[in-house]
Amino acid sequence: MLSKNRIRTIRSLENKKGRAESGMFVAEGKKLISDLLDSKIRIELLISTPRNLPFFQSESLRHAEVIEVSEDEIRMATLLKTPQGCLALCRIPQYDLPENAGQDNLILCLQDIQDPGNLGTIIRLSDWFGIGDMVCSPSTADVYNPKVVQATMGAISRVRVHYTELVPFLTLKNKRNIPVYGTFPEGENIYTSPLTTEGIVVLGNEGNGISEDVYPLLSRRITIPRFDTGTPKAESLNVATAAAIVVSEFRRGALCQC
Amino acid sequence: MLSKNRIRTIRSLENKKGRAESGMFVAEGKKLISDLLDSKIRIELLISTPRNLPFFQSESLRHAEVIEVSEDEIRMATLLKTPQGCLALCRIPQYDLPENAGQDNLILCLQDIQDPGNLGTIIRLSDWFGIGDMVCSPSTADVYNPKVVQATMGAISRVRVHYTELVPFLTLKNKRNIPVYGTFPEGENIYTSPLTTEGIVVLGNEGNGISEDVYPLLSRRITIPRFDTGTPKAESLNVATAAAIVVSEFRRGALCQC
Repeated sequence: MLSKNRIRTIRSLENKKGRAESGMFVAEGKKLISDLLDSKIRIELLISTPRNLPFFQSESLRHAEVIEVSEDEIRMATLLKTPQGCLALCRIPQYDLPENAGQDNLILCLQDIQDPGNLGTIIRLSDWFGIGDMVCSPSTADVYNPKVVQATMGAISRVRVHYTELVPFLTLKNKRNIPVYGTFPEGENIYTSPLTTEGIVVLGNEGNGISEDVYPLLSRRITIPRFDTGTPKAESLNVATAAAIVVSEFRRGALCQC
Repeated sequence: MLSKNRIRTIRSLENKKGRAESGMFVAEGKKLISDLLDSKIRIELLISTPRNLPFFQSESLRHAEVIEVSEDEIRMATLLKTPQGCLALCRIPQYDLPENAGQDNLILCLQDIQDPGNLGTIIRLSDWFGIGDMVCSPSTADVYNPKVVQATMGAISRVRVHYTELVPFLTLKNKRNIPVYGTFPEGENIYTSPLTTEGIVVLGNEGNGISEDVYPLLSRRITIPRFDTGTPKAESLNVATAAAIVVSEFRRGALCQC
């Protein structure tokens, strides 16, 4: 049985303010919750219909409260259009941004990405291509927004997303001679430029791209050339599409060996 | 002044049934409408606030009815959460699927892609990489769904999207020895396999991938390998992400020359 108070708590986590106050976020669906159970993220409450409950037999649930509920109760609590039959309240993890970020690893850095679907898709992309840490400007969409959480399809349990001001972060990387790449409409052809296996790749906002204060901090400007057919031309790529092509190119060398 | 009847007509185009009955679709926003004005798609009605109206000075508007409306009227008509100050009713174009599809060009073929955002993003991707025709199974999301139209960011005015049963279409391509590629979890490494510059690339449904009846029609199974870090693993990529990486690889050879 799910109390009204509990439903109110869950629904308050749809908004950033509610999440900030409680330090909690919501994840829904069997696949996502079981990925979280396999991670270091702590699940404090699991509510599930009887049908889904047998799916969660994890040792990690030891410390969680588990409530069996009806389909109707799930429908009252869910933050999704289509309820998934199970919902978890999870504690927002505190990650330290690794000191060596960009030094012996590849880091994606997002500036003011607004669309939750784009952010979720980029987290999933990072997960596939072994990028363990992402650095986002404070105005980027919140990773614990339920739309982002769901779009990651579980990748949120493996990729650590940090929020920090980009100028000081990138200034520090410049001082350490870590390469900082940025995507630009005019830049080196990404298909022919030699890319390092480590470094920082900055992707800009959907409408405005990378902001001018970041320009001097980029050591390499890269571009995805357009395939010219002579007919009227496309103007831009979706940012998650661009991210996919850029990350694929950075990992290409290593993946050619496998 | 916008009549109630007109508002009802516009709002009926949110659904496939309404679009099928009238043969019309809705596009909103300056960029999208001006891309459509530059194309062969016919705009029959343009409604706009006085502020946006000077933006549309196209010869193509000659045959269109133009109505100046208030912000409030646009708000009543819009199919979007955030109205854009201008909205066009456009005639759904009738394209013939080119006889030579896949023979001297690259064609993307989508099977049952459900998410309008994914479809719109893939159309935009095709536009960037010079893919002029896409072939979709009848159960794929409708390209004239307003969410798809908006997500294409104007690419819908340049890429022709055809709906047809895939099995007969691909059977014909097989007979003509046109290569038919399909993305699979297990297949040739896309980074090391030689890819033709022409052919058909099939992408499957978000949850289920390519259906079994299409398997025998694929001449090549390709895969985007995962970057293995030894830690728990991602299970899949978003379909638009996968499309981006695959198309990028097919165009890579040509784009290395530019």
